Amino acid sequence: MEQLLDNIVKENDIKNFYPDQYRQLAKEIRRTLIRGVSRTGGHLASNLGTVELTMALHIYLSFPEDKLIWDVGHQSYTHKLLTGRKDVFCSLRSFGGISGFPKIAENPADTFNTGHSSTSLSAAMGFAKARDLNGEDHKVVAVIGDGALSGGMAFEALNNAAELNTSMMIVLNDNKMSISSNVGGMANYLGKIRTNKSYNRLKEELENALDKIPNMGKAITEKLKRSKDSIKRLFVPGMLFEDMGLTYIGPVNGHNINELLTAFRSAEKKGEPVIVHVVTKKGKGYPQAENQPALFHGVDPFDFTDDDIVYHGKLLNGNKPVTYTDVFSDWIRNKAKYHEDITAISAAMPEGTGLGRFAEEYPERFFDVGIAEEHAVTFAAGLAAGGMRPIVCLYSTFLQRAYDQILHDVCIGNLPVVFIVDRSGLVGKDGETHQGIYDISFLSSIPNLTVLSPMDEEELKESLDYAITLGKPIVVRYPKGSVYSNPFTGRKPIEYGKAEILQEEKDIAVIGVGSMMKTVIEAAEDLREAGKKVSVINARFIKPFDKECIKQLCKNHHTVVTVEENVCTGSFGQQVQSFINGSVKKKIHTISFTLPDRFIEHGKTDELKEKYGLDTNSIVERILK
Amino acid sequence: MEQLLDNIVKENDIKNFYPDQYRQLAKEIRRTLIRGVSRTGGHLASNLGTVELTMALHIYLSFPEDKLIWDVGHQSYTHKLLTGRKDVFCSLRSFGGISGFPKIAENPADTFNTGHSSTSLSAAMGFAKARDLNGEDHKVVAVIGDGALSGGMAFEALNNAAELNTSMMIVLNDNKMSISSNVGGMANYLGKIRTNKSYNRLKEELENALDKIPNMGKAITEKLKRSKDSIKRLFVPGMLFEDMGLTYIGPVNGHNINELLTAFRSAEKKGEPVIVHVVTKKGKGYPQAENQPALFHGVDPFDFTDDDIVYHGKLLNGNKPVTYTDVFSDWIRNKAKYHEDITAISAAMPEGTGLGRFAEEYPERFFDVGIAEEHAVTFAAGLAAGGMRPIVCLYSTFLQRAYDQILHDVCIGNLPVVFIVDRSGLVGKDGETHQGIYDISFLSSIPNLTVLSPMDEEELKESLDYAITLGKPIVVRYPKGSVYSNPFTGRKPIEYGKAEILQEEKDIAVIGVGSMMKTVIEAAEDLREAGKKVSVINARFIKPFDKECIKQLCKNHHTVVTVEENVCTGSFGQQVQSFINGSVKKKIHTISFTLPDRFIEHGKTDELKEKYGLDTNSIVERILK
Repeated sequence: MEQLLDNIVKENDIKNFYPDQYRQLAKEIRRTLIRGVSRTGGHLASNLGTVELTMALHIYLSFPEDKLIWDVGHQSYTHKLLTGRKDVFCSLRSFGGISGFPKIAENPADTFNTGHSSTSLSAAMGFAKARDLNGEDHKVVAVIGDGALSGGMAFEALNNAAELNTSMMIVLNDNKMSISSNVGGMANYLGKIRTNKSYNRLKEELENALDKIPNMGKAITEKLKRSKDSIKRLFVPGMLFEDMGLTYIGPVNGHNINELLTAFRSAEKKGEPVIVHVVTKKGKGYPQAENQPALFHGVDPFDFTDDDIVYHGKLLNGNKPVTYTDVFSDWIRNKAKYHEDITAISAAMPEGTGLGRFAEEYPERFFDVGIAEEHAVTFAAGLAAGGMRPIVCLYSTFLQRAYDQILHDVCIGNLPVVFIVDRSGLVGKDGETHQGIYDISFLSSIPNLTVLSPMDEEELKESLDYAITLGKPIVVRYPKGSVYSNPFTGRKPIEYGKAEILQEEKDIAVIGVGSMMKTVIEAAEDLREAGKKVSVINARFIKPFDKECIKQLCKNHHTVVTVEENVCTGSFGQQVQSFINGSVKKKIHTISFTLPDRFIEHGKTDELKEKYGLDTNSIVERILK
Repeated sequence: MEQLLDNIVKENDIKNFYPDQYRQLAKEIRRTLIRGVSRTGGHLASNLGTVELTMALHIYLSFPEDKLIWDVGHQSYTHKLLTGRKDVFCSLRSFGGISGFPKIAENPADTFNTGHSSTSLSAAMGFAKARDLNGEDHKVVAVIGDGALSGGMAFEALNNAAELNTSMMIVLNDNKMSISSNVGGMANYLGKIRTNKSYNRLKEELENALDKIPNMGKAITEKLKRSKDSIKRLFVPGMLFEDMGLTYIGPVNGHNINELLTAFRSAEKKGEPVIVHVVTKKGKGYPQAENQPALFHGVDPFDFTDDDIVYHGKLLNGNKPVTYTDVFSDWIRNKAKYHEDITAISAAMPEGTGLGRFAEEYPERFFDVGIAEEHAVTFAAGLAAGGMRPIVCLYSTFLQRAYDQILHDVCIGNLPVVFIVDRSGLVGKDGETHQGIYDISFLSSIPNLTVLSPMDEEELKESLDYAITLGKPIVVRYPKGSVYSNPFTGRKPIEYGKAEILQEEKDIAVIGVGSMMKTVIEAAEDLREAGKKVSVINARFIKPFDKECIKQLCKNHHTVVTVEENVCTGSFGQQVQSFINGSVKKKIHTISFTLPDRFIEHGKTDELKEKYGLDTNSIVERILK
């Protein structure tokens, strides 16, 4: 029972509360967040940090008229609780339940679908201009973190905002963090504003210097403060934004609702794009999360009792199994000992991509460039051209940001950059914005690129060894989750462009891609039990794929099946079908198991695979049919 | 004969000249540039503007040890002349000749391949870090225009540069222009520095205010200037960069070699990333180009005699034919009269994309967002979500920058954004960085997206009408160059996902995509002359393509041929082959004419099509075989 929160059953209900109830409401929201996330897993620290900010925005705005765009969107849980989704909050990120991100389809107060970083300013500017052209007058607000501000497209929008000539509020939610600690010139600059180290010191020093002038110092100071705009601005922080043509208000305490409302109202009066710099604390109100915000950024379900807010640091499901990320993490640390040219690049996710310990051991060879996938890739191209062996570690879904840089800056020059593409395939609970199900398609179109998809722990290690010595651009892609140890022994070493035949029979050849090999091997067993002859092939190379092997298979197999976690268009299977049709004279039946040409919602990966026909049973049934 | 320039036969030769010869050398370089470009066509204004800057860099640096990275790279002609490429300058941008952009393969002084905007800072940072890790000590310099600085990845790099802790020089070549006039907060800020409107005025006002203090004003001013860093910085321009953690030097006259050299040497001493703000004039030394820098940005061959530097404004090849861009340009202006929700977005190329006149007639509905494709697309998503009907106009090659935004911000929300993809297919002389030969592959992988490829002028108009009313994300893609008017009458109106059968016979079905239809129709004639029965189909829809039509074709055709200007992987042809193999029971022979899986060099599009087997003869021969 949350006495106050239970009274909020739809958007705008918060407006019925008295200011003296806000503190209790915030407490109830925090308890609901922690209780809920302890059961479903999800983003915790960022949501605990934005409770009062979200409350203030909901007190200030009216939904659905006003437009509120959450950058990334993983900090929108309080927004969900305040718009009638408290009772379904227990279904957060579950198959069929509510999403962990804003979804227009879920509630009209979810103005814009988000998931990736740094998009909110651009979208909000679009809403603001549409409002003006439509002759409407509602409010438009973007909430962007200091981390997301390191993404280039946020800067493109800031640069363009100066020309907007219309009212729009940018809430800069400054919690000093991306997922990990924030990096870069902008973060340092915000830090200086927060801590008074530069701007307020500058102001004080100048005031002091002037005050010391005999007789009239103080008068001069006052006169300067009231004088021409250019001088007056010396006495306010945020000049960098002012220089860009934007009005700056702040810094504001992001946990003080009155202070926030005052700032919002002051921003509104300007009638132009205004940045309201709000300082919040990630994990606020939950001591463990305040102390370890990176650990509590995204969490699995954990032990929690209402009386005793304790994070036991223990998964409900027991010990954490070894993941592909762990295997890479160990590999790069070991390899770096003997290969001094190995450098590693992360876009604000050193822990998620397994680079945390490498960063500690080889700080001079590790680069966290901020949420900046484009720069990450071209920076790697420069390192490679300069003789290093850079390894760029990104999730598949974020690699989408760097398509042009991979093609234009790395592959045209044929530079030896290794791309570690983690979370390739279905990622599950983060849903449609995060599924890594496009990379085979968009990477395959890029000349000079090699794409490797290892099937298990051993092959991942071998693939990494192979990648680092190839001397050309190469992708090693692997899924989220625990490693597979395949039952076959006597494996063949990796050879350029060669697939690996694991079981050779005849009639039906099933070629699996990386993460799907476990399913393929199981399906082959079932097919044999049903009396079929089945060969099992590990594709290994997506680009170039093994055309010779496929030609050979076509000689004594009537059916060639491919299985992968990628959308159908541009998939490995489509490439194989196309090759067979264009190059094999007789009719070969083909079945390409892929994900359909649609966005895939959130849910456990097993649930999603079953829904979309990528589980063992579906595969066996369709082949038998 | 250019007496001085003729003495420069390789890199570093310029170091042999005396300073009093620089003016004459600059004059000879300009004459060589104008003469050369008047014959080959190419980028002119930007190269005329950087003659002294390039000379100063070549006097200052030693090649190939030092690393010089040109952003975009179309301003590297003087660099080419100063590195032994004067005698082949007449082959600029020609098939087999030198490229219009830096190419590592062409000369070791071309440190890094460029072509797209805003990549130089990231690459230079990579070179600088590689140098440090290798224990080397050469110089690393990036030259970036103020236009390229509006690209997000340049900001990602600037943001990261503050943490570089090593020597690197960023030459900000400020000519107040992208291709067209520059836009945005950063451009305004640079303008203020240049024109003294803000920073120098601030400095002066403060000095004046202090100087007026009786007795000791001047002394205080001097004391402040020499005092704490934070106050001292009040007296220098470029504080925005200083706030970002970078050292700023400037503004420097970019046509004064001495001043440039002084600034470079001063930057070097800092041992950290330094921005040298250089002010240049686009078109410098050629009055017509100075007055119309946008017109002289990229030019076709023109009349030119040495004695009389006159641009006659006339193409050597006579009147300019109507292009697809022209057709779009007329369409949007007409349509905008009756559709008040039409808005148009350009990324710094209003003229190139045909939006110039729309921008004049509907300034409030036109948005030039700077070289910022990512922001352009997500801004359009916001406009669409707000009820507008935005039309985003980009070249195919630059659309690559926005792959993630199209997928994540437009298509997940299924928002009605129209993408006008110009220069789709081979673009010719700009070469491998600019060929628009990947869009079918990368766009086809995106769910919810419709992709239309009209074959001629009439169909383009109809496609545009169709696109604006579809209510979902849609791409209309067309090539560079003059329109085709196909010989068929009684055309069928566009219907969702339907191909158009232009000639129905049997045996061989040839399906063409957009720009290749002229060739397809010619090839079909030749095949008929060779005694074959040929059907001709206009694909129209790339996504979703017409599966029903293809199934029908397979009934009375033994061979299905597809023809398109796209790399093979992920091509329309591959999709058709895959579909036929997976869905048609009997064996159908297929031939997919595409570009090979490699980067395509510069040359006339006809030359390239012949080389890569996409001309009529090659197609006919391969089908007959």
